[in-house]
Amino acid sequence: MVPRLMTAFSGPLLEIERRFLDAMPEIERWLRGQWQEHTPPFYGSVDLRNAGFKLAPVDMNLFPGGFNNLDATFLPLCVQAAMAAIDRICPDARRLLLIPEKHTRNLFYLQNVAQLAAILRLTGLDVRLGSWSPEIDRPTPVALPDGSSLLLEPLLRSRSRLGLEGFDPCAILLNNDLSAGIPPILQNLDGQFVLPPLHAGWALRRKSNHFAAYDEVAGDFARLVGIDPWRINPYFSVCSSVNFHERQGEDCLAANVDAVLGLIREKYQQYGIEETPYVVVKADAGTYGMGVMTVKDAAQVTGLNRRQRNKMSVIKEGLAVSQVIIQEGVHSYERVGSGSDEGVAEPVVYMIDRFVVGGFYRVHSGRGKDENLNAPGMHFEPLAFETSCSLPDHCQNPDAAPNRFYVYGVVARLAQLAASLELERTAPIEEQVACA
Amino acid sequence: MVPRLMTAFSGPLLEIERRFLDAMPEIERWLRGQWQEHTPPFYGSVDLRNAGFKLAPVDMNLFPGGFNNLDATFLPLCVQAAMAAIDRICPDARRLLLIPEKHTRNLFYLQNVAQLAAILRLTGLDVRLGSWSPEIDRPTPVALPDGSSLLLEPLLRSRSRLGLEGFDPCAILLNNDLSAGIPPILQNLDGQFVLPPLHAGWALRRKSNHFAAYDEVAGDFARLVGIDPWRINPYFSVCSSVNFHERQGEDCLAANVDAVLGLIREKYQQYGIEETPYVVVKADAGTYGMGVMTVKDAAQVTGLNRRQRNKMSVIKEGLAVSQVIIQEGVHSYERVGSGSDEGVAEPVVYMIDRFVVGGFYRVHSGRGKDENLNAPGMHFEPLAFETSCSLPDHCQNPDAAPNRFYVYGVVARLAQLAASLELERTAPIEEQVACA
Repeated sequence: MVPRLMTAFSGPLLEIERRFLDAMPEIERWLRGQWQEHTPPFYGSVDLRNAGFKLAPVDMNLFPGGFNNLDATFLPLCVQAAMAAIDRICPDARRLLLIPEKHTRNLFYLQNVAQLAAILRLTGLDVRLGSWSPEIDRPTPVALPDGSSLLLEPLLRSRSRLGLEGFDPCAILLNNDLSAGIPPILQNLDGQFVLPPLHAGWALRRKSNHFAAYDEVAGDFARLVGIDPWRINPYFSVCSSVNFHERQGEDCLAANVDAVLGLIREKYQQYGIEETPYVVVKADAGTYGMGVMTVKDAAQVTGLNRRQRNKMSVIKEGLAVSQVIIQEGVHSYERVGSGSDEGVAEPVVYMIDRFVVGGFYRVHSGRGKDENLNAPGMHFEPLAFETSCSLPDHCQNPDAAPNRFYVYGVVARLAQLAASLELERTAPIEEQVACA
Repeated sequence: MVPRLMTAFSGPLLEIERRFLDAMPEIERWLRGQWQEHTPPFYGSVDLRNAGFKLAPVDMNLFPGGFNNLDATFLPLCVQAAMAAIDRICPDARRLLLIPEKHTRNLFYLQNVAQLAAILRLTGLDVRLGSWSPEIDRPTPVALPDGSSLLLEPLLRSRSRLGLEGFDPCAILLNNDLSAGIPPILQNLDGQFVLPPLHAGWALRRKSNHFAAYDEVAGDFARLVGIDPWRINPYFSVCSSVNFHERQGEDCLAANVDAVLGLIREKYQQYGIEETPYVVVKADAGTYGMGVMTVKDAAQVTGLNRRQRNKMSVIKEGLAVSQVIIQEGVHSYERVGSGSDEGVAEPVVYMIDRFVVGGFYRVHSGRGKDENLNAPGMHFEPLAFETSCSLPDHCQNPDAAPNRFYVYGVVARLAQLAASLELERTAPIEEQVACA
């Protein structure tokens, strides 16, 4: 099942889809060229929003969860892409240490970890799971709903290497986004590949760096296919020195909200779009939909009540928010079901290395098209993409499922490419490690 | 459906499968290392024989037909592998010229060409089909059973480049095995990639070079996993200067048949196998199961009647046979169906670059387990592998379908690796071309 697009503005998106299909040889060749210049992150997932008149990434996750939500038929594709990634990064690797998030009681998340470990094992790597959580003070099996179990083991640090008891890995794959900072146990490693690099974690990463890189990528790409870059790129702006508790930075926030709303309004006018513009205010460092607010008027950010200010103040791991990004809101026009069962569907596309390996929709019933679907505690139903993103079909309509998924895969790869640029530019100056 | 193995000797194969499964991390790492040293052919298909006590490649095709016989669910895997191959070989390529076999009235074959073109187009290449057949003197559409059509166009040669009217490709992919020799139109090209290289065609290629390289690969691999290399490697021997018409070389043939049968007999004794040894005598240069003979006694090759000698004398394109390979026959113990519907099933594994992308069984009813299933005019039913070759499952029996297919995929990759060595060693000394 593929969500239907509920919009009066499907004209422009059909046009985007048609352009992408027509330009497919140029697009793929351009991407091949880009990957010669830039190294893709090991993996990533991209949240897209499809507004009919606009299709854009709104978030790029470098520590993707949710691999368990991909359709099982695409497991071979994941394995093959992971093989290609390992060939490129560390062909000599034999053992890989996977470090998941600490919240070991979230079974949804642990099923993702199990799936990820399965994919990596199928490439022929010896994979074990390590944790620096104090609870994991000995090898700890965790039962999963399907009857299998995961073994979490305490990390063991020597002078320059990280491993487990009896396990000295060549590569360390983080599925932990380092929101709580880079723990000393991960610092100053020598001769081990850390994937993605430490500065990809939220301890150092900033959404605004990503979207600045995406601006460039989207601009170049839009020139290539002959579209207005705005069709695939949300406006954004940044305020630093914000302190919601102390109502510090509210003026900056209001001014920037106003400015971004103004820019959107112009575009809506230009294209005759009669929707209400909105922006999403969110922590520049952070994830999990915490510290996120939908705003349609600058007055909203100056008149926050205590509860709202508290909500905006902290993100995951209790970290205080001090810099925020004000991002153009992109309406979600994809819906599934009908009547009271109707829900908004937000596509999430998964990549390993340069390859799109699958995706699913986050389907949430009873939420508006301009609300954040990835809020904390938010329940969503995953709806796996039913076909691959690599099978566009010129014989079908531009909005037929294989073609829509192809277009999603292209935009997701633009975000993956932006992440490459972002990581290059934010990399600390240090020596590259070699595979020991 | 997976063919059942009808053999009293499943013990040793179960053991091979178990060893492969246990050694999977070592196997995959070893293969990664090999691919760092050796460049895989663009594509290939390998005919395997599964005798229960032995699992071996008996033929390696560098111009594979039959892509249309792969299960549709593995199309994304083909596309992704082809993307990786193009990334590696000619990332800058925009246009690819595909040159199929000349027999344009074979609809089975043309469906393969259509599938291959589809895979390549899905990587974003602009693909067109060229032919040097005199029949194709203008762009000629050929209707396919599914209602689609292929456009075959006459080749156009400039001083140093090959293309079509209005189409100057960077890469030329041969699906024509050059049995009739290397036509002048393909010679002395400059700045265009020819895949696979011209010396991979049967005009120059010899099976004996392939199996000599396979000897080495199988030996190294057998040491790695701790098995007798004979378990995965058929004995072979070569006679040059054979002329069946003039009964020249019969003594050499008889002596070599005798020698190979003797070696097989020793192994059968060693392992307590009570089957009758046989060898397959076939043209050292050639394909399509022409010039192939099953022999159980040296006397058979000295007492050939005129009809048999005629049959052995010519291969595809009417070429005379002058060198033959005497290869250990590997019994086909895989069978499908029952009663009069029962048939022998021979697995064929498909690869693109380093990756196994699928496979199928050639199922032929009413043929013996020691007969050649790929004879001219031979009708077979393809039976697509139902799971990928990359999903071995340690929780299932070693002979469960995913595990058997994994083992097939490993042996097929050994043959692909042997083809890399073979092509390196037989390459003419010339400059590498660069992508123009």
